[in-house]
Amino acid sequence: MHAAQMAEEYPVIDLDSDAMDAARLLAEHRLPGILVTDANGAPHSVLPASQVVLFIVPKYVQDDPSLAGVLNESMCNQVANRLRGKKVRDVIPERLTKIPAAQADDNTVEVAALMARYKSPLIAVLDGKRLIGVITASRLLEVALNN
Amino acid sequence: MHAAQMAEEYPVIDLDSDAMDAARLLAEHRLPGILVTDANGAPHSVLPASQVVLFIVPKYVQDDPSLAGVLNESMCNQVANRLRGKKVRDVIPERLTKIPAAQADDNTVEVAALMARYKSPLIAVLDGKRLIGVITASRLLEVALNN
Repeated sequence: MHAAQMAEEYPVIDLDSDAMDAARLLAEHRLPGILVTDANGAPHSVLPASQVVLFIVPKYVQDDPSLAGVLNESMCNQVANRLRGKKVRDVIPERLTKIPAAQADDNTVEVAALMARYKSPLIAVLDGKRLIGVITASRLLEVALNN
Repeated sequence: MHAAQMAEEYPVIDLDSDAMDAARLLAEHRLPGILVTDANGAPHSVLPASQVVLFIVPKYVQDDPSLAGVLNESMCNQVANRLRGKKVRDVIPERLTKIPAAQADDNTVEVAALMARYKSPLIAVLDGKRLIGVITASRLLEVALNN
């Protein structure tokens, strides 16, 4: 099977979108991550939900996790405010700004090899430069097991 | 909100289960990962779908990804065979054998801090030693955004 046949639609968000919108998409669709595209619609990176969580944890709590236990409920409710006014590009760490891309006619093993090499749970599928979809690791397993 | 209220059921598999069963669960439910428990039912680790993909890519293809392009379709179909006879414990790398666990009465920020510290997309929730569920990063965002 070719990458183009395996590819599926996946929620996409622009680098310059509001970070809160990315968080809402992740929360509403209960996604482990979202595909981020640049101004030209080309795949730029994957924003994992866990990275957004990391972003909303105050620095002093990251430094001393025991402080979290003494926060009251209203302080807990304010964590999401840390996303306000931020763009998606502000939340993505430098090390995540590579997204592996397969070409439409790559075979199953090429896609698997790409995923393995980048240890990525998600790869983009391109037809030339045009993004035609995404293949997740679980989708690849589905294809591999049904053959 | 407490961790116990945030926790949800999540597919779980035993360390000594067939690795193929883990792959099937990941594929059928289209999960990014599955929770692995030890013989006592205690959370042991998370097995990411991308790790299973890494496992089924032959070593010679990992070493030279250009070889994948010359594999024919029937060779592609054999990749899943690499899981046969393997147990879940054989597929989990050493570095993934830690799963952060929250206690039932931990608050939202404590859960977020735990997730941030371990850069984990998933944490287990324990009532004492008993596993009562799992909180994913997207579930935590859902709770944080709705408060």
